[in-house]
Amino acid sequence: MSNATHSATLLISAPDKKGLVAAIANFLMTYNANIMHADQHQDNVEGLFLMRVQWDLRGFTLPMDDFAAAFEPIAREHDMSWKVSLSSRKPRMAIFVSKYEHCLVDLLHRWRIGELDCDIPLVISNHEDCRRLVEFNDIPYHVIPVTKENKAEAEAEQFRLLEEAGVDLVVLARYMQVLSHEFVTRYPNKVINIHHSFLPAFDGAKPYHRAFARGVKLIGATSHYVTEDLDEGPIIEQEVTRISHRDEVDDLVQKGRDLEKVVLSRAVRWHLDQRILSYSNKTVIFD
Amino acid sequence: MSNATHSATLLISAPDKKGLVAAIANFLMTYNANIMHADQHQDNVEGLFLMRVQWDLRGFTLPMDDFAAAFEPIAREHDMSWKVSLSSRKPRMAIFVSKYEHCLVDLLHRWRIGELDCDIPLVISNHEDCRRLVEFNDIPYHVIPVTKENKAEAEAEQFRLLEEAGVDLVVLARYMQVLSHEFVTRYPNKVINIHHSFLPAFDGAKPYHRAFARGVKLIGATSHYVTEDLDEGPIIEQEVTRISHRDEVDDLVQKGRDLEKVVLSRAVRWHLDQRILSYSNKTVIFD
Amino acid sequence: MSNATHSATLLISAPDKKGLVAAIANFLMTYNANIMHADQHQDNVEGLFLMRVQWDLRGFTLPMDDFAAAFEPIAREHDMSWKVSLSSRKPRMAIFVSKYEHCLVDLLHRWRIGELDCDIPLVISNHEDCRRLVEFNDIPYHVIPVTKENKAEAEAEQFRLLEEAGVDLVVLARYMQVLSHEFVTRYPNKVINIHHSFLPAFDGAKPYHRAFARGVKLIGATSHYVTEDLDEGPIIEQEVTRISHRDEVDDLVQKGRDLEKVVLSRAVRWHLDQRILSYSNKTVIFD
Amino acid sequence: MSNATHSATLLISAPDKKGLVAAIANFLMTYNANIMHADQHQDNVEGLFLMRVQWDLRGFTLPMDDFAAAFEPIAREHDMSWKVSLSSRKPRMAIFVSKYEHCLVDLLHRWRIGELDCDIPLVISNHEDCRRLVEFNDIPYHVIPVTKENKAEAEAEQFRLLEEAGVDLVVLARYMQVLSHEFVTRYPNKVINIHHSFLPAFDGAKPYHRAFARGVKLIGATSHYVTEDLDEGPIIEQEVTRISHRDEVDDLVQKGRDLEKVVLSRAVRWHLDQRILSYSNKTVIFD
Repeated sequence: MSNATHSATLLISAPDKKGLVAAIANFLMTYNANIMHADQHQDNVEGLFLMRVQWDLRGFTLPMDDFAAAFEPIAREHDMSWKVSLSSRKPRMAIFVSKYEHCLVDLLHRWRIGELDCDIPLVISNHEDCRRLVEFNDIPYHVIPVTKENKAEAEAEQFRLLEEAGVDLVVLARYMQVLSHEFVTRYPNKVINIHHSFLPAFDGAKPYHRAFARGVKLIGATSHYVTEDLDEGPIIEQEVTRISHRDEVDDLVQKGRDLEKVVLSRAVRWHLDQRILSYSNKTVIFD
Repeated sequence: MSNATHSATLLISAPDKKGLVAAIANFLMTYNANIMHADQHQDNVEGLFLMRVQWDLRGFTLPMDDFAAAFEPIAREHDMSWKVSLSSRKPRMAIFVSKYEHCLVDLLHRWRIGELDCDIPLVISNHEDCRRLVEFNDIPYHVIPVTKENKAEAEAEQFRLLEEAGVDLVVLARYMQVLSHEFVTRYPNKVINIHHSFLPAFDGAKPYHRAFARGVKLIGATSHYVTEDLDEGPIIEQEVTRISHRDEVDDLVQKGRDLEKVVLSRAVRWHLDQRILSYSNKTVIFD
Repeated sequence: MSNATHSATLLISAPDKKGLVAAIANFLMTYNANIMHADQHQDNVEGLFLMRVQWDLRGFTLPMDDFAAAFEPIAREHDMSWKVSLSSRKPRMAIFVSKYEHCLVDLLHRWRIGELDCDIPLVISNHEDCRRLVEFNDIPYHVIPVTKENKAEAEAEQFRLLEEAGVDLVVLARYMQVLSHEFVTRYPNKVINIHHSFLPAFDGAKPYHRAFARGVKLIGATSHYVTEDLDEGPIIEQEVTRISHRDEVDDLVQKGRDLEKVVLSRAVRWHLDQRILSYSNKTVIFD
Repeated sequence: MSNATHSATLLISAPDKKGLVAAIANFLMTYNANIMHADQHQDNVEGLFLMRVQWDLRGFTLPMDDFAAAFEPIAREHDMSWKVSLSSRKPRMAIFVSKYEHCLVDLLHRWRIGELDCDIPLVISNHEDCRRLVEFNDIPYHVIPVTKENKAEAEAEQFRLLEEAGVDLVVLARYMQVLSHEFVTRYPNKVINIHHSFLPAFDGAKPYHRAFARGVKLIGATSHYVTEDLDEGPIIEQEVTRISHRDEVDDLVQKGRDLEKVVLSRAVRWHLDQRILSYSNKTVIFD
């Protein structure tokens, strides 16, 4: 592997105590790391130290194959959880979609112009509707219908495709099906969903109808990691837009589409850029 | 009464049907009204027509004492609810406050520089804390302690003061007490509250603590008319601000203060300017 | 022409005086118009009355072919400028694009899902780059290279295509060429441009680079009608987003794309919905 | 000096190179610093490393009187500019005001409730108007009229008062006078101004009138350090709010007041919290 123009990103969480920054900085300096970005956070309530550091691999004297062995003693000493990623290894992302295509169109365009640094080996849907669009982007499109009766088999088929494709991240781009316990536990913090409300307001079904009925003056959208508790996973990003008494449900749906696209795409980009650490059902988004 | 530089504002709601605008416009034209602002809205779901029209009283040939008699036949024909207000008669506003003074400071300053066009005959509190500030503004300050035991007598004393002062509008500027059924029904759509969350999220107590615990990325504030159902009244205005993982509960409280001030003051100004029509637990805010 | 499910929209501007609303309301009532939306505005500085009224053509007893003859006497009496549009006649929109495709992708998707109610008979570009995308949407794609030398001939060819296609509206979706005086005067208030800054800040070239150099904390985008004075035409819509010291020029470009898409698409939708009146180098956006 | 409950904040800028973080972290660890917050930034365009680190002084084994001597060798080795501040030493802030009191009211209230951690030894004005308000807050109020003729003497009197009071920061809370070259060079990055527009748009006089004339859809406010070039100093914070065709100049002024208060108070708080580093006519705002 040539390290030219490549970088490594290290995400760390540990019980907060003195000397953590020095330990990490000294380790990296030992191998002549050229740090490009570093950001850290201390959660004083949980007593946690969280850090993201990215460095240029040019001139880094530790082969990345030996990184784990070299870093592990320090990690153990400070009780760190850690994960390192290489920019040379593109994440592989699957998109799940039903019939609404606006988030899918948006994600595919961002991917095509290089805003999302990943491979997209497949799109999975329970409907035929988006095939032409997906295939226009030269991505395989798999239709797996889901019913109450076949849910287990449908997911088995999804797992087979995801594993075959070596998928790291699943994005639910308005995929109108609830994932099983098994799905969620297989992909912890690896499934991102977009919910079309400002959670925790209007969790569950038909949020735009309920926002209209309640007479709120702003509507929102929320992207989050999927956990077993529906709409209760760690929130990654939220955004709102103003509505007025002149807006009917259809107007809310239309204005909401713009929110959903932006809020989902930010979450996906931050995840792909290794900028999210999730703990205690919250997220840290590193700058 | 001299009409010079004065205006009248008419708020109307009626079952929607053809000819409503023409009926109102012709009535006003008959008496030579010079319309300054007009705004209307049709709620297609409820089948309602809602209108606000404001006109200069100079040159208006119908004495306002005779307005009701002249307009009533048209109102009856079209099944209108209506209310007319004169700019020459300033609304009288009472402010209720507990210990947090930021909304009070804000309202008093806006009032002093003419942003809120009303008289403030009194401020009522269950604590002594804000006396010096209120009296600096030459407004009488009444302390009425409220406990579980004396709640009925305390409200009786409040009613006496409000009636004596001829109060039209009660503003709860972070008044930390729940009003009784009797209070709310005495002042329908005449009590404005500020809730320190983006309702319906985090209704009830300690919203900033709960927002922090849930890990939301935006916090909000909501002003609404007080009804019998706590935090369920018609929403007048909402606003949000961004927070991050770096913000602790105290930061939320601090950022929230700026939201609360802006959101409450807009609601009060719009109410004083006769720009709000409330129906079906929603509000129309006329431009 | 069957009027079933169709509507008409009337835009009016006139010197402000008493009786205008009554005159218009009475005219429409005479022919049994069922008003769906009405909004009006008085510009007190300019002494102008501006109105938009939309009505259902079912039950309207005046054939729309006779509308002009019937309305003209009223218009003349009150010195009105007016324009009526029928929902049955879809506007025809041309899109001009260079190499950046994000606004084009966005407009085409909104059009495909019905958010933009128009026909798109052609896309014109000075480059080949977007051909595949446009043709995927079954829209003819015309490449007309533009150089300093051939500018007049290039525009002549553009005019020929626009006229042949009966185009009502030209949208410059990041078309990186300045239009001639002749172009602008041929299509007054009919060419919408997106400028990638918060005008009047950073008008002219390379606004993201200049915003970065100046160290602003927010960047913006502006959609406007094109006039002879570059970047000086009537502003239709603006929006901003927050940046920080961590954002480099490339980040501004990326964040700006999301603004440009939203700000341009709103302008186009409002124009297509006959919701914009332009005067004194400003716009009124009717609700 | 007791270090109990006190903290120190170190701001550093240096040419970017390897080992800076390790050098600083090791220095602090040597003296057993308990780091509370750390944030750093690399400006890749300028090749600069910028850092803010705050630590608890309890248990810190280096007396702060010896800090400079101990840190200077490291600073020299890495060519650092640096500045350390102690929370035990409250900054001293002077406020300059003319007749508009909204920013002054806002700052004084934030100060009273502890949002601004500073002493305010005096307020200086060229008018009597705000005396009662300032003295209500038990702060000395000095009126120094300024005319073309007496400008030099007036500033001399201002300098005398500022020096006598040991002022670290001057806040221009809508002070409608231009400061001299001498004033600005005496207090580099120590004078904060609020400009009532979204700079660089509408720099100079009467920005609300010019925003109205241009027909923009958003208005803004900007806080910045004052430099010799009027309205050209490093921007600290900006915010905008939406306006519509219904807003006249007076409405812009009213909406703008809310922006000015928020944008100025954020700048002041960040400055007092040692969170701003200024370079190349830009600011870094540390989290």
